[in-house]
Amino acid sequence: VWLSPRTSETAEIDAAVQLLLKLKVDYKQMTGQDYKAGCPPSENLIVSNNGPAADDCDGEDLVDPWNVSASSTKGVDYDKLIVRFGSSKIDKELLERIEKVSGQRAHHFLRRGIFFSHRDMHQILDAYEKHKSFYLYTGRGPSSEAMHVGHLIPFIFTKWLQDVFDIPLVIQMTDDEKYLWKDLTLEECHRFTVENAKDIIACGFDVNKTFIFSDLDYMGASPQFYRNVVKVQKHVTFNQVKGIFGFTDSDCIGKISFPAIQAAPSFSSSFPQIFGGKKDVPCLIPCAIDQDPYFRMTRDVAPRIGLLKPALLHSTFFPALQGAQTKMSASDPNSSIFLTDTPKQIKNKVNKHAFSGGKDTVEEHRKYGGNTEVDVSFLYLTFFLEDDEKLEKIKEDYTSGALLTGELKKILIETLQPMIAQHQERRKQVTDEMVQQFMTPRPLNFKF
Amino acid sequence: VWLSPRTSETAEIDAAVQLLLKLKVDYKQMTGQDYKAGCPPSENLIVSNNGPAADDCDGEDLVDPWNVSASSTKGVDYDKLIVRFGSSKIDKELLERIEKVSGQRAHHFLRRGIFFSHRDMHQILDAYEKHKSFYLYTGRGPSSEAMHVGHLIPFIFTKWLQDVFDIPLVIQMTDDEKYLWKDLTLEECHRFTVENAKDIIACGFDVNKTFIFSDLDYMGASPQFYRNVVKVQKHVTFNQVKGIFGFTDSDCIGKISFPAIQAAPSFSSSFPQIFGGKKDVPCLIPCAIDQDPYFRMTRDVAPRIGLLKPALLHSTFFPALQGAQTKMSASDPNSSIFLTDTPKQIKNKVNKHAFSGGKDTVEEHRKYGGNTEVDVSFLYLTFFLEDDEKLEKIKEDYTSGALLTGELKKILIETLQPMIAQHQERRKQVTDEMVQQFMTPRPLNFKF
Repeated sequence: VWLSPRTSETAEIDAAVQLLLKLKVDYKQMTGQDYKAGCPPSENLIVSNNGPAADDCDGEDLVDPWNVSASSTKGVDYDKLIVRFGSSKIDKELLERIEKVSGQRAHHFLRRGIFFSHRDMHQILDAYEKHKSFYLYTGRGPSSEAMHVGHLIPFIFTKWLQDVFDIPLVIQMTDDEKYLWKDLTLEECHRFTVENAKDIIACGFDVNKTFIFSDLDYMGASPQFYRNVVKVQKHVTFNQVKGIFGFTDSDCIGKISFPAIQAAPSFSSSFPQIFGGKKDVPCLIPCAIDQDPYFRMTRDVAPRIGLLKPALLHSTFFPALQGAQTKMSASDPNSSIFLTDTPKQIKNKVNKHAFSGGKDTVEEHRKYGGNTEVDVSFLYLTFFLEDDEKLEKIKEDYTSGALLTGELKKILIETLQPMIAQHQERRKQVTDEMVQQFMTPRPLNFKF
Repeated sequence: VWLSPRTSETAEIDAAVQLLLKLKVDYKQMTGQDYKAGCPPSENLIVSNNGPAADDCDGEDLVDPWNVSASSTKGVDYDKLIVRFGSSKIDKELLERIEKVSGQRAHHFLRRGIFFSHRDMHQILDAYEKHKSFYLYTGRGPSSEAMHVGHLIPFIFTKWLQDVFDIPLVIQMTDDEKYLWKDLTLEECHRFTVENAKDIIACGFDVNKTFIFSDLDYMGASPQFYRNVVKVQKHVTFNQVKGIFGFTDSDCIGKISFPAIQAAPSFSSSFPQIFGGKKDVPCLIPCAIDQDPYFRMTRDVAPRIGLLKPALLHSTFFPALQGAQTKMSASDPNSSIFLTDTPKQIKNKVNKHAFSGGKDTVEEHRKYGGNTEVDVSFLYLTFFLEDDEKLEKIKEDYTSGALLTGELKKILIETLQPMIAQHQERRKQVTDEMVQQFMTPRPLNFKF
């Protein structure tokens, strides 16, 4: 999933300035000073405006699905992001409630703060306690055949949610979006959908409870889906998507209207075959925090079109091998461990590229210990090593200096190698027929 | 059909100025002079720009599907419009060619200059002569149940083209567009589609050669249609639709992306059930000239997505009862003769509202004669009285003063009354099942 939200609130003034430049307005002639690009752009205009303040620009993390860039080596400041986005922290109380309602110990992604933020999760649990079901919605933008381990995070977690709550799941493959954003043909994007669907299915989803859909196919197969898209499109202006996603006047009209297509699956009426036409089945969206802008928009529109706001569970980013300042990106092979990597490739990449929080020499490391907050190998283990005690022991040993970087990397390698080998094994079992089955609009094993 | 093209080429600068105003830029402070709204807006900025000249603003006709307003009582200057839009006049040579290729006398809409402009009609005829078929595409925006006689013009002409060339026809009902533009629900727009389809079917279309589709339904029934929509959406920017249709930043994203939906039926690959997946069947679009901006855009995009440019035949507007300076509008009942009007209503409306080109007194009229160029009753007869000799005689008699306004109106009333009564009779025969049949995606009786 899916596109580039623009967090800067100065986008509108920026766009006006760009427009003026494009029209060859002699800026200097008007203002008596040179135009200075960058932040804060509002200072570049002699304005008596009531526009947004440009106080967001100092040492701020840039949060964008392609280029996450944090000002600290510890990565993005997620507490600050919660404040900025206006979401809520997943606190101890919510964690305990999830465990109580589900009757299961919370997933380690929850226990370890990898899913750290939410919107309206309490309402989902309130309803569930009253035997009112909900459904899960997540997605993926199929921009290439290559998925990396970071791409699995939302699916691993969604699978757990599905198992624990026993509810329907819809997975949107935004092949239309990838066509609009990338230099790819429709056929390529659709092929990536099918290939990526195999990796998703290999996470173990139940075909009787899961509907995976290509936008390119489902839009042309469901008048109800299109109706919800048009409803959203009627209630969101260009000004709004410009502010949220940073679109400009030079963007194609497909990009500009796309956010409605990512919004529509948040409404159960988009899937009459699953929900029997009911439009009040609540939706819970597990996704990385960079997707939140889409659903802020969706939640803003929902009451105005008589539909329910979706609830959300937000995850942190999966860090690049080079460090938590950027997220893993499939377009940079050295930053990523792919689901197709061999044991040897995994070993080499971790050893060669994984940013270390250890000291420069063994002597120093033994003396001062390593820093797990920035060590990528340790960070990856928080994602993939399920044993809490083992992880705690590694943390202690690394911090004390008892565990060396090479030894820590070895533990990660030995965690990733079987995990990825097993994934590859499961993926091999996924046939084209199975993909076809998952992707056919049909009733699921639930009554609504 | 369908929406508001903006013919002014200064739209872009206008939009920039609006944006600046919105941002409360102190215009005067920058320029040392007051901002003057209106035409030409470019003069309002101290610009060293290479932008478009504002020489279009003097005594120009405003051409817009809702508010056609001509500077002359004779109506829009169509020769000027041809120059402005860059289309070609339907001249004697083309008329003769149409007659030769079709083996039929040209329709009186052609002979009388009601269809007066075209794009690439010679190429359609070239191909047809080499036994390469084409198809027809026209449409209607179903904004209410009430259609007036003016709405029939494109359908009457399209029916003639279909009969003469024996080719498939697709008719788009843009219920999605009406939902986006009007204060209507999706259900209302879809109901208007069905009701309007009955009036269209009553024009005599052959169900074996004609596919009528609701956007709301067909988008959700044809992955190929959506694929063509997305292709167009990728290749048109907001700047472009802003320039063409006058959209602003406050418009909803549905309006902004809609032009792609009116463009897509111009490509035969949008209808695989009819054309067997062939993407090179040429398309001919008969429509009123105000729809040309959509298809200028379509023709601009087509080669860039590897598809054929549609050809066009443009009609003049159907004048309001009050005179040729505006077109007939269903939202002003006094300007329109509806397809549901009784003989009495028709009589009263013509007698009461039809603008007369006659003189103020019988004596003056007998002496100086009437003016057929501005007389609405006469203009309507050029549309609906098929007999050329009879029409010529009426013209002579009216111009000479032999025929009085009341007598001319009587001829019009006696032409319209049976025509509309017959339409009502045929419409009564159109059942819901027939509508369903016309609107089901299916092969037509043609082999491609």
